[in-house]
Formats: sequence, structure tokens, C-alpha cells
Amino acid sequence: MRMYDLIKKKRDGGSLTKGEIDFIVEGFTSGQIPDYQMAALAMAIYFRGMDREETLNLTLAMAASGDMLDLSGVPGIKVDKHSTGGVADTTTLVLAPLVASCGVPVAKLSGRGLGHTGGTVDKLEAVPGFRAEISTEEFITNLKRYGIAVAAQSAEITPADRKLYALRDVTATVDSIPLIASSVMSKKIAAGADAIVLDVKVGRGAFMKDLAAARELARAMVDIGAAAGRATVAYITGMDQPLGLAIGNGLEMAEAIQVLKGSGSRDLVALCLELGSVMLVLGGRAKDKEEARQRLEDALYGGAALEKFRELIIAQGGDGRVVDDPSLLPRARYQEAWVAEGDVYLAFLPADKLGEIAMKLGAGREKKGDPIDPAVGIVLGGKVGDLIRKGQPVATVFANDREKLKQALAELKGCIVLSPDPVTPPPLVLEEIRG
Amino acid sequence: MRMYDLIKKKRDGGSLTKGEIDFIVEGFTSGQIPDYQMAALAMAIYFRGMDREETLNLTLAMAASGDMLDLSGVPGIKVDKHSTGGVADTTTLVLAPLVASCGVPVAKLSGRGLGHTGGTVDKLEAVPGFRAEISTEEFITNLKRYGIAVAAQSAEITPADRKLYALRDVTATVDSIPLIASSVMSKKIAAGADAIVLDVKVGRGAFMKDLAAARELARAMVDIGAAAGRATVAYITGMDQPLGLAIGNGLEMAEAIQVLKGSGSRDLVALCLELGSVMLVLGGRAKDKEEARQRLEDALYGGAALEKFRELIIAQGGDGRVVDDPSLLPRARYQEAWVAEGDVYLAFLPADKLGEIAMKLGAGREKKGDPIDPAVGIVLGGKVGDLIRKGQPVATVFANDREKLKQALAELKGCIVLSPDPVTPPPLVLEEIRG
Repeated sequence: MRMYDLIKKKRDGGSLTKGEIDFIVEGFTSGQIPDYQMAALAMAIYFRGMDREETLNLTLAMAASGDMLDLSGVPGIKVDKHSTGGVADTTTLVLAPLVASCGVPVAKLSGRGLGHTGGTVDKLEAVPGFRAEISTEEFITNLKRYGIAVAAQSAEITPADRKLYALRDVTATVDSIPLIASSVMSKKIAAGADAIVLDVKVGRGAFMKDLAAARELARAMVDIGAAAGRATVAYITGMDQPLGLAIGNGLEMAEAIQVLKGSGSRDLVALCLELGSVMLVLGGRAKDKEEARQRLEDALYGGAALEKFRELIIAQGGDGRVVDDPSLLPRARYQEAWVAEGDVYLAFLPADKLGEIAMKLGAGREKKGDPIDPAVGIVLGGKVGDLIRKGQPVATVFANDREKLKQALAELKGCIVLSPDPVTPPPLVLEEIRG
Repeated sequence: MRMYDLIKKKRDGGSLTKGEIDFIVEGFTSGQIPDYQMAALAMAIYFRGMDREETLNLTLAMAASGDMLDLSGVPGIKVDKHSTGGVADTTTLVLAPLVASCGVPVAKLSGRGLGHTGGTVDKLEAVPGFRAEISTEEFITNLKRYGIAVAAQSAEITPADRKLYALRDVTATVDSIPLIASSVMSKKIAAGADAIVLDVKVGRGAFMKDLAAARELARAMVDIGAAAGRATVAYITGMDQPLGLAIGNGLEMAEAIQVLKGSGSRDLVALCLELGSVMLVLGGRAKDKEEARQRLEDALYGGAALEKFRELIIAQGGDGRVVDDPSLLPRARYQEAWVAEGDVYLAFLPADKLGEIAMKLGAGREKKGDPIDPAVGIVLGGKVGDLIRKGQPVATVFANDREKLKQALAELKGCIVLSPDPVTPPPLVLEEIRG
């Protein structure tokens, strides 16, 4: 078998067999297939696509390219959750303890994101002492003991995907549905969960800009999950505006605590209850979504979810007192609000621009390995459709640099649109896709 | 400017500007743009193509990536000739001295081919002592003195094309019309000729398999030539069967000498007179093709062309006596003919298969740097439509290995088709394309 022939086959619209895909993934991971041939293949896949079977085989080959977590020793149906990434997407911080507190074990491996803010583990690391880099043994021990563990994905998990993603990232071959779907699902399958709930974001602050593409990606991932024997459900949710109100690692952590205390952003709570109810049903802890929702609300408003979050933090070395006193989280040196000069409605909160402003403040990484500042970011005064009263903040900027603070405020004023007339809020959950 | 953005632009169907193409070619040649990004771009170009302006700019940037020959010190209009490559394509060996003997200076830089046989310089090197690796100074001195010089293209000419071609060769991105056209024309432009005659082969023994693609390539190259200020004419000629009768470096040299002596394969003579007449007109040595043809025939049948060939050989260190005594060329240890068992017509001579058989005998290179055996090859008894009398050879194999000889004979019998009934010969010159 020669890589040249496989590139040509895909270029000419052919379908690669399981044996061919295994050859490619093994050769690329071991370094026998050079980057330039893989880059050419990735571009050919960008143009020609991959059918269901090819996408499944690529996923399975990448999942098998490194360590695969064996969670069979942990009792119960393990459910994983994945978001394709959005701005102020604090869902996992809330959802993991919420669902775990209802008896469904949540084993979450998470990457350190690129973009506006860090990933889930970066946000957790805003808690003093929290260790996201834990061993597989500790991960499984904690999962057994507390029903919850959240760790940074190690280099031993799906090395093929890691290497391929890095290559796609510099060759303009990231935005290919089968490549995105297999990348996400290979990690989920290697992470060992029995069931998977996917949150596919769509809109200007998401990777998928339109509904048709988001639907196609969701369908591809649900199909892979089903074929790989993992019950998988996908939601398509709106990401034209940020999901929560806080953008920035420590600020999002504070917002998650607020939600777990029973208040917090309406949309964030709604999405956690929706995704959580499916997770409870998949995890066998509720017979239907209605029963599940009731249990989740009990856990959220009764304090069990917050206590589970405290357990998670303490189990991984963090200071559990932040749950009671979020002021223990890193604080920015400077903060300044943009205050409404009259009663106004929030009409337009462009998630992409807001994410960019947060990144420039230091909340996110431009490239791999960049440090992030856990204290900085933006907190919005509301979401599209909300009324901001005169004298109340439209948005507040948290910064550790005066120049950056001024710059951010100016940019916020340039991109957020206010309206004297009421504005209809856009829908949050757009579609649910099942196998 | 970032290579990533340029890959994405092309991927999305955009046109690259002159500045962007210069950036790409310079960065790739210097090594600042890695192979994997260039491979992704080449595949994007494969799918999206390039418009006339992009193709011209790529050609000019590659031409300027290394040394450019300055032939302005050589009197007269210098005319270059290029064939896209075919089996038993001995044209250059005949055409260069033929045209030079009529007063048009011929400066020919030629690659060492991959495939069934070597390139023109490999064939010339079948002559004992001939040096194809000469310096630019010697090349120009000879050109001034004799009106003819043929040399191996040095690494200092179009390094960008050399590097890109090597990459395309292993990433299944060779067969893209704008990439082929710019590759050929960048070398022609760097080689310094004032006018260019192109022979675009089409058929099973050629790179271009169908007429539409050959026409598109010819048109692209003629357009580049015109835009670059070099008068360019392209011919599309048939390559379903071999052009001459000999396939193999020394054997083709012997056939060229035979043609220069006034006999030899009908098609080979016809093509040399056709291409040569255009070269004489472009070179200002004849007012029209009719006058040119008359002059060429005089040179061919009067012996002037043969003497010019002898001059070329001696000037570059070769043994000029081969012109009188081709038995001085390397001779294979074994030879065996496949003899006709009755009167038959040659019905099918698949150029691709015949080339492959010659390569397996050792006449060609499978990969760069492979040695070639100048003695081995095949000589056909005729061309499609020719009658082979009982007892006459259908084909003769020349080999230095008995096993290979037997294998080649068996394969010849498996692919050449004979017919008891007369067969119409296919046309040779299909189209002429001018700017």
C-alpha cells in the first residue's frame, strides 16, 4: 500500500477502505507518512468528503492510536458531554457536578482551548490549588469515589488526532465535517464513556456559522457514536450571542458557582437543565426527560449540585472555600463598567467580537502554550432582549493593564448594539438530533 | 502575509495576486514555507485551478527563482522546443541539428526524464564521451560558435519548480493544467529563448490522455508564452502508439542518425519537418512554412543536418564517428526478434505498455537518480497500419539479461495486436495552437 495511491484515490472521489484508513493513521502517527502527504490528503478530503463508513473508520483508528480509558470498573452508565465551543460557554462547570449529584458518573477529559478563553480545565484552574493534570489512576479513583473527575486530556490519548489537528490547523483543512466529527468522536470514544451528549454550537461565535452545517456535523457525530456502540444525542444551540454573561476563566468559574447556587444567567441554567435531563435518561437515572428535569431542579435548588462541585474541587487539590466565597478567585487589578445612559434594550451582542476582546485582555490563547490570565475578561449586563436600566452596567471589563482596559471598553462600545425599543430574544435550543 | 490565509483563499475559490504568488514561491524556495503547507495549496489548486493571470505569475515567479540564461549575446532569434513527453520521441535529437543547420540557433536545456527512457541528454550520453553537464559559459560559447548546444538543466535553473515538482510527484498533485503549464514554461523562460515551439502529446503513451485536456494545456502554455513576450506555438500530436520505431536511449540515438541520413521512421521525419518549419519561421529564416519546409528538406537530404549533429557531438566531447558508424553506440549483449508467422498488419501498439517494457529492460528510471542502461530497449518492425511480411520482425528486443529478454518478448506478444486485414494509420498532427 502506498500513501500516494490513497491520496490519488480520495482526490478522484473514491472511498478509502478500513485497511487503507488504518494504514494512513498508523503511518502518520508513527511518522512514516510525512506531513506533506497527510496535508495533501486532508485537502482532498476537504473537497471530496468522506462517507459514513470512512468517517467511522477514521474515528476508530484515531481513538485506537493511543491509550483508551477503561472505565468498566466504575459502576453505572458513564455519560460524557462535549461542546463544539462557544463564547461564555460555562455549561460543563455546572453540568458535571449537577448530573453527578443525581447519580450519573461524569468522567470528563478536556483540552486546553485556543481562542477567546481557555477550556474547561483552564477555568477550573482559576481555583487556587486545583490540579487538572492528574494520572489515569487518580482519575478513575476519584470517579469511583465521588462520581466525578475532570482532567486535562493527556498526550497519550488519541495522538493521531492531536497530530492531525495540528497539521489541519496550519493547512486550512480544519473546516471539514468528517474531519471535525472524527476528531471529536475519537477523543470521546478513547475517553471511555458509555453515552455521549453533544452540544453543537451554531452562529457567529461558533465554529459552525450556519444551521445546515451544524446539522450535518451533529448528524455525522451521532452516526459515529451509534456505530461505535455509544448512545449519542446531539443538540444544536445558538451561539450568535454569548451563552452566559461572563467571558474569562475566573469570571466564568464565579458564574458557574452562582448558577449552582440557584441563580445566574437564564440561558445557562436552561441549557444545563436540557442537556442534563438527557444525560440522566442516558445514564439510567430517570425514565424520561420530565422526571430527569425534576431531579435536576431538586439537586440544583436543594444544594446537592453545589456540594458535588465542592467535592470535585477538593478532590483535585483546590480550595473548596471558593464555593462559598468566590472572592477567593483571582481578581483583576482594574475594573470599569460601561453604564447605560438611559433605559435601553440589548439588541446585538456579537459573540465573536466579544470573545476577541476577551482574548486581547489575556483571557485566551492565540497559540498553543500561551499563558492565560485567569482574572481578566468581560461580564455582560444581560442578554439580547434584556432591559438595562439607566445607570446599570451594559458590560464590565476586568483587566490587569489600564491600556488594555480602555481599549476593551472602546471596542465593546463599538460592537454592542443598544435599542430604545424592546427586542425579541433569539431561541437557544434549536434542534435535538438522535441516532 | 500568511501562507495559511493564501491556502484558504485558494481553497475557497479565490484568485491569488502577483504579490501573493511571489510570496509563496520565494518562501517555498527558501524553505520558510514548509512542504506541508505547499502540498495543501497544490491540492487546493488541483481542485480550484488558476486563472490566466495566476498561471502567468506563478510561471514568472518560478522562472525568476534561480539563474536565468541571458542569450542576448548570441546573434539571431533563439528558438526552443519542448515536448511534454512520449514514447520513442526522438524529435529533439533530429530537430535541434536540423534547425540549427538552417541558421536558427538552438539552445536546449533538457531534464533527465523519469519513465520509459531517459531524456534527451541521457540519449546523447549514449554517445561515448558526450558531456551533457557543461557550464553556462561553455553552453553559450558553443551556441555562438556552432549555433547549437544541448545541456542537462542545472539545479540553478528554476529551483522553485524543481522543488515544487518533487512535492507534487508524491502528493498526487501533478495532473493540474495550470501547474503543468507553469512548470514547463518557467523552465523555457529561464532558459532564455526568444521563441518556443511546444509539442503536446496526447494519448495512452502521453501524460495527457484526451484531446480536450491536451488542448487546454497547449492553450495555457501558449497564453503564458505570449504574455511573457515569447512567441509560442503549440502542436497537439498523437501518442497512442510510439512516435519512432526505437525505444531505448542508444537505440533512439541510432534512429535519429538514420533520420538525419535521410531515411528512418515516416512519422518521426514528418513531425520534425512540421515542427522545424515553424521554428524556421519563428527564427526569421523563412517567410512561411512552405519555404521553411523546402530549406529543411534540403538540409536533411543534402547532409547539412547530419554534419551539424556531428559538430554538436564533437563540441561536447563525444565521439563524432558514431554519425558514420552507429555500431560505436553501446550494444546490448542479447537481442531477439519476434518474427511474423505470416503476412500481418500492425493493428495496435500501446505506447504506455511498450514504454513500460522498455523501462523494465533498464532503459528508463523508476525514480530519480536510478542508473539507465543505454544499450537496451525495443525496436518495432513498423507502425500501426504497416504490413509486416512473413519472417520479418514485428519487434526486436535488446537486453543485457536473458531473463529480462524473455520476459519482454512475452509481454510484447501480450500487448501488440496484429491483424490479417489492412488497418488505417491514426493521424499524427492533430492541432496547431497559436497565441
